[in-house]
Amino acid sequence: MSAVLAPAGGRAWNLLRRYEQCRRETLELIVGLSDADLTVQAMDDASPGKWHLAHTTWFFEAFVLARFEPVHRAFDPRYAYLFNSYYESAGARHPRPRRGLLSRPSLNDVLAYRRAIDDALFALLADDPDPAALALVELGIHHEQQHQELILTDLLSLFAQNPLRPTYLPSASAGASLALVARPPRGADWIAFRGGRCAIGRDDDDGFSFDCEQPRHEVLLRPYALSAHPVTNREWSEFIADGGYEHPMLWLAEGWNQARAQGWKAPLYWHGGADEPMQMTLAGDVPLDPHAPVCHISYYEADAYARWAGKRLPTEAEWEVAAAAQAVAGNFAQSGRLRPGAAALDGQTPLSQLYGDVWEWTASAYGPYPGFRPASGATAEYNGKFMCNQFVLRGGSCATPFGHVRESYRNFFQPHQRWQFSGLRLAEDR
Amino acid sequence: MSAVLAPAGGRAWNLLRRYEQCRRETLELIVGLSDADLTVQAMDDASPGKWHLAHTTWFFEAFVLARFEPVHRAFDPRYAYLFNSYYESAGARHPRPRRGLLSRPSLNDVLAYRRAIDDALFALLADDPDPAALALVELGIHHEQQHQELILTDLLSLFAQNPLRPTYLPSASAGASLALVARPPRGADWIAFRGGRCAIGRDDDDGFSFDCEQPRHEVLLRPYALSAHPVTNREWSEFIADGGYEHPMLWLAEGWNQARAQGWKAPLYWHGGADEPMQMTLAGDVPLDPHAPVCHISYYEADAYARWAGKRLPTEAEWEVAAAAQAVAGNFAQSGRLRPGAAALDGQTPLSQLYGDVWEWTASAYGPYPGFRPASGATAEYNGKFMCNQFVLRGGSCATPFGHVRESYRNFFQPHQRWQFSGLRLAEDR
Amino acid sequence: MSAVLAPAGGRAWNLLRRYEQCRRETLELIVGLSDADLTVQAMDDASPGKWHLAHTTWFFEAFVLARFEPVHRAFDPRYAYLFNSYYESAGARHPRPRRGLLSRPSLNDVLAYRRAIDDALFALLADDPDPAALALVELGIHHEQQHQELILTDLLSLFAQNPLRPTYLPSASAGASLALVARPPRGADWIAFRGGRCAIGRDDDDGFSFDCEQPRHEVLLRPYALSAHPVTNREWSEFIADGGYEHPMLWLAEGWNQARAQGWKAPLYWHGGADEPMQMTLAGDVPLDPHAPVCHISYYEADAYARWAGKRLPTEAEWEVAAAAQAVAGNFAQSGRLRPGAAALDGQTPLSQLYGDVWEWTASAYGPYPGFRPASGATAEYNGKFMCNQFVLRGGSCATPFGHVRESYRNFFQPHQRWQFSGLRLAEDR
Amino acid sequence: MSAVLAPAGGRAWNLLRRYEQCRRETLELIVGLSDADLTVQAMDDASPGKWHLAHTTWFFEAFVLARFEPVHRAFDPRYAYLFNSYYESAGARHPRPRRGLLSRPSLNDVLAYRRAIDDALFALLADDPDPAALALVELGIHHEQQHQELILTDLLSLFAQNPLRPTYLPSASAGASLALVARPPRGADWIAFRGGRCAIGRDDDDGFSFDCEQPRHEVLLRPYALSAHPVTNREWSEFIADGGYEHPMLWLAEGWNQARAQGWKAPLYWHGGADEPMQMTLAGDVPLDPHAPVCHISYYEADAYARWAGKRLPTEAEWEVAAAAQAVAGNFAQSGRLRPGAAALDGQTPLSQLYGDVWEWTASAYGPYPGFRPASGATAEYNGKFMCNQFVLRGGSCATPFGHVRESYRNFFQPHQRWQFSGLRLAEDR
Repeated sequence: MSAVLAPAGGRAWNLLRRYEQCRRETLELIVGLSDADLTVQAMDDASPGKWHLAHTTWFFEAFVLARFEPVHRAFDPRYAYLFNSYYESAGARHPRPRRGLLSRPSLNDVLAYRRAIDDALFALLADDPDPAALALVELGIHHEQQHQELILTDLLSLFAQNPLRPTYLPSASAGASLALVARPPRGADWIAFRGGRCAIGRDDDDGFSFDCEQPRHEVLLRPYALSAHPVTNREWSEFIADGGYEHPMLWLAEGWNQARAQGWKAPLYWHGGADEPMQMTLAGDVPLDPHAPVCHISYYEADAYARWAGKRLPTEAEWEVAAAAQAVAGNFAQSGRLRPGAAALDGQTPLSQLYGDVWEWTASAYGPYPGFRPASGATAEYNGKFMCNQFVLRGGSCATPFGHVRESYRNFFQPHQRWQFSGLRLAEDR
Repeated sequence: MSAVLAPAGGRAWNLLRRYEQCRRETLELIVGLSDADLTVQAMDDASPGKWHLAHTTWFFEAFVLARFEPVHRAFDPRYAYLFNSYYESAGARHPRPRRGLLSRPSLNDVLAYRRAIDDALFALLADDPDPAALALVELGIHHEQQHQELILTDLLSLFAQNPLRPTYLPSASAGASLALVARPPRGADWIAFRGGRCAIGRDDDDGFSFDCEQPRHEVLLRPYALSAHPVTNREWSEFIADGGYEHPMLWLAEGWNQARAQGWKAPLYWHGGADEPMQMTLAGDVPLDPHAPVCHISYYEADAYARWAGKRLPTEAEWEVAAAAQAVAGNFAQSGRLRPGAAALDGQTPLSQLYGDVWEWTASAYGPYPGFRPASGATAEYNGKFMCNQFVLRGGSCATPFGHVRESYRNFFQPHQRWQFSGLRLAEDR
Repeated sequence: MSAVLAPAGGRAWNLLRRYEQCRRETLELIVGLSDADLTVQAMDDASPGKWHLAHTTWFFEAFVLARFEPVHRAFDPRYAYLFNSYYESAGARHPRPRRGLLSRPSLNDVLAYRRAIDDALFALLADDPDPAALALVELGIHHEQQHQELILTDLLSLFAQNPLRPTYLPSASAGASLALVARPPRGADWIAFRGGRCAIGRDDDDGFSFDCEQPRHEVLLRPYALSAHPVTNREWSEFIADGGYEHPMLWLAEGWNQARAQGWKAPLYWHGGADEPMQMTLAGDVPLDPHAPVCHISYYEADAYARWAGKRLPTEAEWEVAAAAQAVAGNFAQSGRLRPGAAALDGQTPLSQLYGDVWEWTASAYGPYPGFRPASGATAEYNGKFMCNQFVLRGGSCATPFGHVRESYRNFFQPHQRWQFSGLRLAEDR
Repeated sequence: MSAVLAPAGGRAWNLLRRYEQCRRETLELIVGLSDADLTVQAMDDASPGKWHLAHTTWFFEAFVLARFEPVHRAFDPRYAYLFNSYYESAGARHPRPRRGLLSRPSLNDVLAYRRAIDDALFALLADDPDPAALALVELGIHHEQQHQELILTDLLSLFAQNPLRPTYLPSASAGASLALVARPPRGADWIAFRGGRCAIGRDDDDGFSFDCEQPRHEVLLRPYALSAHPVTNREWSEFIADGGYEHPMLWLAEGWNQARAQGWKAPLYWHGGADEPMQMTLAGDVPLDPHAPVCHISYYEADAYARWAGKRLPTEAEWEVAAAAQAVAGNFAQSGRLRPGAAALDGQTPLSQLYGDVWEWTASAYGPYPGFRPASGATAEYNGKFMCNQFVLRGGSCATPFGHVRESYRNFFQPHQRWQFSGLRLAEDR
């Protein structure tokens, strides 16, 4: 693609390089997967991989090409219906629970769609692009990164429901990453913070952020402490052994009802019981790593664990204030491990595994910051309309592309959902 | 009952008088209702009136008598199973959606249960009562007041589903209260507040409050303004006429799905269309009062209206800070009107109808205040375990007993629920 | 009522006496029941007692008075909507699953409705009545008898779901009927029939019958035998003990799915396990009578039992041919027992308990006889439109009014339904 | 494969040739389909094509190889769980609604499975095979033919739900078969039959049949007539135009509820309305052929149409007696048309299109014939356990392999199901 790229302005040039990289990284995720693997929808919450490939492409077509090309000819006018996710302003769309019925277009058709839109985007932006178009391309890149993670989480959901327990990762890389490291000795288990009047969130001139991270604003925090490490599988096993899933007094009422109705006895993807605990992962079925952060838990479970431990979940403001002092580094998707691991021995940061490994549930309902204004135009629907019955998660996971998250980044899911790489870190008052 | 009352200490004496009054007021609510009216469960969210009568009684039996009587003999040992609402620590219980199957015990049996528990409570507390018992009696009185409102909301839900449209209020009182008063001219439509560092919530020594109102703590508020009056039926009709229920861009995603799935076109209990708008009320089917606050709307609808109006819902902190300056007065249940009405002509308060008439949805998800600790003992389950997927409402309604609410009072319901007397007041940034 | 009755023609006179008796017997069923008992709907399949009282009355109003009175004024024009069961030709109607929401009209209102229609009917028919009207009155009497049984089955369903296990029968009568009699010695356990070309069904001049029993027609039967007695509780206990509910090979596929989904381990209303087997009845919770016919089983269970026993269910033709030789006698509702009992010692009939005690499931899907024509007019909907996915039961039960059934009588229910007084008798080829 | 085939006995040789042909014909059906097309499950009632390919193979492995090979090594021991359909005696199995989650094994894996079982079967049977094994192979061939039809019906169901409306048939063959022929003039529209004592069904020595077709037995039939042709699309359009889907009096009660709940306005796969009627077929979206038999209707619709026409559906005995006089010929799958067509001009048979084109719903509930005995062994589950809440269809369809059906062949589906190639022929009494 780069051959067609004329030396546009610096920002455009840079952006297109990032675009190219992002698009290529998406394709790298599907190496070894069949059209069938990428067509099936494992559950209503998940989408087929092929749908992610096409939807992220449609995003660029609908929000950039269709608006900024002098004359836009749709690649296939029916794709807008098929691959619009939830943008009411972009017209009617295929119902979400029926995404898995689309054996056509084929994977090859979708890959051709990607190439065609890539070409058109490069052509459009090569020559004196509209800054508004560039801003939407940047949004589209971040958007595609989110779907890169979803391709992985949704695929794991599919493979975990297949009695054959397929393996996504080549076994060599899986074997390598299975070399466990002991949990490091630590000087302190709790890191204290003073609280007070603190600023969180982000403004436009702080670099890219989603509208829901804005505006930067002040909050009042009481003194608090965060656990130096996320809760591990070993610690979670103690919770189970102590009847954590059997004592309603530990649970939110809704959580208890959900746990009963679904028969929850352990995190999602755990099986084999206490004697031979196993976990389905993208490297297939592997023995449970006791020192890795617990993963694939709902908010309800995180909250129950914290109550059992006599602690609480941090608020998102507490998390962000603590995180502001640390660089973004950790076990992200680029490590190739694609599952949480034990902390490295040489951890230098006070809060271990704050970024990467597992998203950390916070006690904060996902809502608008004071003065929040949704993005203008069609992308107004990107975040704001979901600010209800969801909880904020922070820090990214082993399936998150490196570079995607930052300390102000707000991920959000419904409290019963477990198929994301979600874990927790405890907090307490000081 | 008072004949059996020995002159105990002042606090006990006073409390028992309030107990007696509260229990009597509950019975006054069911005058004119049959055993059948009080047995049927209109929907899973609602409970039968008879169940409310017995449950509030069981609350005193289980949490006061069973703990503080030297030897407690259960009135009927099976009632604990039937009338425990959601207290896991109090043992197994009849499933909520099956409360409406209990044609037995009869209404007379339940009234006998009430009398027996009243007598036992007076006997227990007449002579040197344990302060802990008194505290639980006080909690039980506030608890019963909450159920007084639910008796009314649940009955309206039942009668509204009956094609005969029965009338709860004697027609005389209904007629009297139908004398509408014009909406008063007002000097200002918006009341501004400075914000800054403000305290909300309540501590133990501020008088009775539920645990979820505690502790008193500081919040940071930006300058803001509240509408001087709640949104009225006339204003809501404009929202409808302008396609408010047809434009997805106005709605939260979940709200839009809910509105579509349920076919919402207007608030609950409205019918007759724009030409002859009617509203089912406790006074039967009556013409819609254009100047009364809109009522029986979900959070989703309140939020959509605010977006349509270019405003937003207030946070609960904004509401409470504003309310702290006003006395608690308004159209409560004692007025006998039992439906929202137009504002009085002589309104002196800056914020009209802040208390009573309709509960006002706020933008705040119901969660724990910083430093929140659930009440100890069984009543730990009273509030804390519901802090998930609910939104806070403030101010009380026309069905709330006067004296029950205060500026720090936090009511909460799920965002799709509409059968409470719920309305809204707009806010904006300043 | 009889005072107003002029000496009309013999048929009319006789019919009105039967009408009077039928209506009175209905009222006798509700002695001791409250408005609440008669208002609640225990499940979608069942209807409230009050609804039965009103619906049977509406039947006479809609199909006799409204058509044959010179000027008919509806008792309450809204009742047609409330109490129409399933007659599409009679207009819109209240949805069946919402019948239990009708706390109004009150029981007193419904009783007044019954009296008013009785009076009007007597007035109409006293003087030279139209034969078509008389035919519909006769149909209405048989219709009301069907609902008499449903009042009892639906009440048992309600009381059985109440943890208080209320008792419908006065304890004296219950006690009396508990005097068990030993199962009689019998000369033969199987009664053989030759089969061949046999006639079943009924024609108009054979006396009253429902349209679905017509026309009389010939069938070819192979030689067969019927068990001399219905399957008893003791025999059913052996089926349970032998794993009858655990072996899928005994079951129809749909039956097995249903049994798994519902967790069936025994007939409906059994509890207490094998050691202390109990059964909820209209006489309250009583020890299981080992010699009484098994009752409250689905078609699926009856079919599985027959397969386990190495036998089969009889077809309805086999049943009717066998029954034609026996008089209609047995434990019907008039015995006051209202639950199946052990066979009498002095049984003279070859097939014991063929009538009364329990409806006997047959292997025959409910369908039209050759040459079947639905009744003309509105009552065309009475039977024909249900000829799908139902199975025929024969012989009446302990809750059926004596005089209601005959050898050609076809009752029908869906194969999963268990709340009727349904049992089985085995058959085999000869 | 034939190279490995030693000259065994005549029956074995002949059977293996038929086996080979059947297996090859199955594979011909999937030419042009992708792994994705064959992986997705369009609805719970349907199965993925890949599942059909594997299940029919497992049938031979489980019921022939595993029993008759001296030492059987499973191709993959996990496949028994994945590809057992409903045989309780064959062990646990993957839940039917989750068949569409199996992106693995891949299509190539499944094809390898087919080849391996083919080879093993040939090896087993080449040399002096057990007659019981041969009988099961024959059953397996007929079984695979049933699944050949299901591959087509299930694929159409999938493609019809895809907004892209994919085409299964190569357009050339589709175009050719679109050459419509006018409906032939006919001497008579009704063909009369005398009835009386007639024999239906089949005995073992009549050649292969399923157990449910046995035993041959006598029935009594009244004189009747069958329509000379199945109901056509044009006739069905008149039913629609006359409000057939709007008049509840035409419908069975369950059918009406179903039609309302699903919003039925026309047969499945019809769209475009009366002005430009279109039908989704295996040749893609094509204009509705007015002279072709109506197809993809439920029993409920067939029954309603018959009532509207003043006729009725034939019983299965009436159909079979009439069919016995005609040779099995018609538009079967081998024609390559794969959709119903207008009758040929040169029709010589009295009953046109009796075989092929569309399965014809009969009025007969699917039940056991007198003296029915299920097949012995595991295949006892093949038919008998489905004899409940299903109706019999006769005659085969355009998707049925030629040679699969005969006059005694009983197909059966639930009355609400529409995705099969199902139509109807009228009957009347004479």
